[in-house]
Amino acid sequence: MAVMMSIESYEGRPANVEEAKEQVVFANRILSNEGVMDAFGHVSVRHPFDPNRFLQSRALAPDVVTKEDILEIDLDGTVITQTNLKPYGERVIHSAIFKARPEVNAIFHGHPHAVIPFSCTGVPIRPIAHFAALFYEGIPLYDDYDEDTAMLIMSPEQGEKVAHALGSARALLMRGHGCIVVGEHIPALVWGSIRLRDNASIQLQAIALGEPKYLSYEEGRGETRIQLSQAVLGRAWAYWLARAKKAMPDF
Amino acid sequence: MAVMMSIESYEGRPANVEEAKEQVVFANRILSNEGVMDAFGHVSVRHPFDPNRFLQSRALAPDVVTKEDILEIDLDGTVITQTNLKPYGERVIHSAIFKARPEVNAIFHGHPHAVIPFSCTGVPIRPIAHFAALFYEGIPLYDDYDEDTAMLIMSPEQGEKVAHALGSARALLMRGHGCIVVGEHIPALVWGSIRLRDNASIQLQAIALGEPKYLSYEEGRGETRIQLSQAVLGRAWAYWLARAKKAMPDF
Amino acid sequence: MAVMMSIESYEGRPANVEEAKEQVVFANRILSNEGVMDAFGHVSVRHPFDPNRFLQSRALAPDVVTKEDILEIDLDGTVITQTNLKPYGERVIHSAIFKARPEVNAIFHGHPHAVIPFSCTGVPIRPIAHFAALFYEGIPLYDDYDEDTAMLIMSPEQGEKVAHALGSARALLMRGHGCIVVGEHIPALVWGSIRLRDNASIQLQAIALGEPKYLSYEEGRGETRIQLSQAVLGRAWAYWLARAKKAMPDF
Amino acid sequence: MAVMMSIESYEGRPANVEEAKEQVVFANRILSNEGVMDAFGHVSVRHPFDPNRFLQSRALAPDVVTKEDILEIDLDGTVITQTNLKPYGERVIHSAIFKARPEVNAIFHGHPHAVIPFSCTGVPIRPIAHFAALFYEGIPLYDDYDEDTAMLIMSPEQGEKVAHALGSARALLMRGHGCIVVGEHIPALVWGSIRLRDNASIQLQAIALGEPKYLSYEEGRGETRIQLSQAVLGRAWAYWLARAKKAMPDF
Repeated sequence: MAVMMSIESYEGRPANVEEAKEQVVFANRILSNEGVMDAFGHVSVRHPFDPNRFLQSRALAPDVVTKEDILEIDLDGTVITQTNLKPYGERVIHSAIFKARPEVNAIFHGHPHAVIPFSCTGVPIRPIAHFAALFYEGIPLYDDYDEDTAMLIMSPEQGEKVAHALGSARALLMRGHGCIVVGEHIPALVWGSIRLRDNASIQLQAIALGEPKYLSYEEGRGETRIQLSQAVLGRAWAYWLARAKKAMPDF
Repeated sequence: MAVMMSIESYEGRPANVEEAKEQVVFANRILSNEGVMDAFGHVSVRHPFDPNRFLQSRALAPDVVTKEDILEIDLDGTVITQTNLKPYGERVIHSAIFKARPEVNAIFHGHPHAVIPFSCTGVPIRPIAHFAALFYEGIPLYDDYDEDTAMLIMSPEQGEKVAHALGSARALLMRGHGCIVVGEHIPALVWGSIRLRDNASIQLQAIALGEPKYLSYEEGRGETRIQLSQAVLGRAWAYWLARAKKAMPDF
Repeated sequence: MAVMMSIESYEGRPANVEEAKEQVVFANRILSNEGVMDAFGHVSVRHPFDPNRFLQSRALAPDVVTKEDILEIDLDGTVITQTNLKPYGERVIHSAIFKARPEVNAIFHGHPHAVIPFSCTGVPIRPIAHFAALFYEGIPLYDDYDEDTAMLIMSPEQGEKVAHALGSARALLMRGHGCIVVGEHIPALVWGSIRLRDNASIQLQAIALGEPKYLSYEEGRGETRIQLSQAVLGRAWAYWLARAKKAMPDF
Repeated sequence: MAVMMSIESYEGRPANVEEAKEQVVFANRILSNEGVMDAFGHVSVRHPFDPNRFLQSRALAPDVVTKEDILEIDLDGTVITQTNLKPYGERVIHSAIFKARPEVNAIFHGHPHAVIPFSCTGVPIRPIAHFAALFYEGIPLYDDYDEDTAMLIMSPEQGEKVAHALGSARALLMRGHGCIVVGEHIPALVWGSIRLRDNASIQLQAIALGEPKYLSYEEGRGETRIQLSQAVLGRAWAYWLARAKKAMPDF
């Protein structure tokens, strides 16, 4: 977990619940606008004061999520907010990972098309472009779906299996389904989610040309430190946010 | 037909003729806006009260179809509506399938580019992404064009040949031409039409990487049940509809 | 030339000079909006009354061409219009083809990216999608550039070489450069130009999957007759024109 | 350097500092709007009167750069402008190249996705489309990152290594990172940056089809002379600028 600890001083974590809700809204809008999510996929942030809770939209298409849609959920997947709004069925993924990974404060699950070819051929996604360096410790693959659950992760037990497969990694591919990305805070999560998709698409092209030279472990580690700094991440965040606001008049 | 029967309770079918017309308009607009159709292709829905009739636009580009353009047609392809408006020449595809498949209530025919490479190489499209699970029973290929008909399906006899090739499947590829998708109602049809295109494009990339692991029959069956539920399909439908309305000021 | 003669009755030809100019503007706008041209490429139409003249924009990016930019040019490439406006250097392509092909009334030259891989590998573009049927007689390749002319066609002699390479075909690939498409009138030309690009991109994907089955000569001939009919071509033309007008507020 | 000298008469260089700043803004906007840059990448122009200085934006996403963001920097990378605005860390790339290449007056560094597969497989990008002719003298590859610098070029020494690898070429690939393009002035630079990306993407497709025939040295040299002429470059510049202004209401 060296990498994540190395940026502990970065002010990416929300100062209060309102800010946390806003970050979840922003992440939903950005990942939708950049084509990483369509009508499906979800983002969560750990509660700023209570590590045993997280914030996530009710079951809704990510491009229309607002602060009013954000629910408070505990690490068993129980919705704490007094509401009739329906949560995502796959919130157990978030519960289980927040439980297993205390240093993780933000989680994305979705189905970007570019990662699926890797998920079902066993070819690992590896950093080939420096902006995807943060995956230098490797991206494991989950392919242990329960027979009667239709490849979805709907029970606490399945959530735990997925969290176990993720291990200490920053991302997990799910065979024929999509991916999970985790981050120390929402901006790092958004960076990782976009860069995973971009790297997959570049790697596919590189493999068509020949044997790619991937980033070395040291290159990946060094680049990660820089890319998750406030200077780099802050610029990217402002850029993606402005694009989303321009494309979404209601935002 | 187990899958289709399993969602009989879903309220995807129109309650009256006005709603049926509206659904056809929505499907035309959505499939056009999502790039599944260009100036060509057509959508139909079975008449809500008379199973021997269906509703379909007059011969028109799908991105401009309105309720005023919808014609009532019988299962011989005869236009029932008193009108001079010209129907699609290939409406016989719809007639023949509605006749052969009583549980089918919605049909799409079009030429999404991503499916054509599969149609002319004999490589079958198989569910590789979970959101295309509904094709788990297989997608047959039609390549029995009459010599003098220019690869179009213009006569009742040709319609019947196509319906026969479709059999009990949810989709049919047509060599060098495009595809047919069928559904229990319009929302399921739109889901299938978009997901078929997306799966084709992902599958092409996966094949470039290695030997893909496709969804098993059981995975496909289980996922289909979930994806055609109101919760999942309803969210996707609302998402695609909002996107179409945003992109089409006249809509 | 059987195919072209078979649609002689189609009213695609302009009735007067104003209509001819308008058609050239429309074709420029459409092909630009559909991504077939960028800042370069040109379209011409034969003069409706004088077969020894044609109409074409002055040297200008196609997305901003208006009727005021259209010049009258003769078959030697001399600009007849009294003007200081500069014509395209490569207008000699048009002169030479209008001279050699009396049944051709509209010509496009441009550099759509999708055709270039075929032009420089010797893999012929062949109709694989039915909407590109009109190229069923084959698409020859030009690779006989004069050494000192930088792959451009700037002199009457070079124009004649290109016209000779085109022969009786509907399109010609130019190695490392782009393509020429010809038509009996502007709508057929626009159809051919868009469909050539689309077919190239689909064919590239099909070749990655396996050995494609192309349209047979008979299928191509039959489809061409239908696609160049008023019903089919008219719908496509209206669709592309509406899209261009929507995307170009000044149009 | 024969090619660059041959267009010395072209009026692409700014007449004064205001014009120079405007050119940097335009290049940032254009390359961002054409998808060659995202939140990262930078453009510089040599100072019109002092060859030992150059103008470049402060550290900012290129799609929002305005004249107020442009800094004056010397060839050691020292910011001359009296300001607290933060410069790009990688400005040393620009310093070193302006020092080593007196005939170069404009530099781009960025990470267009299409060039990365070439950068990490050792397959050289070579002109395959005539509009990328200007790279006919070859594009070298840089892969000599210092171990502790995370693949970034942040010190004067690293800048010099990159300038040395570039040599007398018009572009340099950087393994797993992106590219550098240089030009005699901003319009030529923008042309080169867009065409490098386009050529990479076409070349990848051509290689999938067979053994491409690239432009010969003579073809490349001849085309370059024409494409960097005022007639050709001026039209492309106006086209790209109009597109950027249309897409960016604040511009």
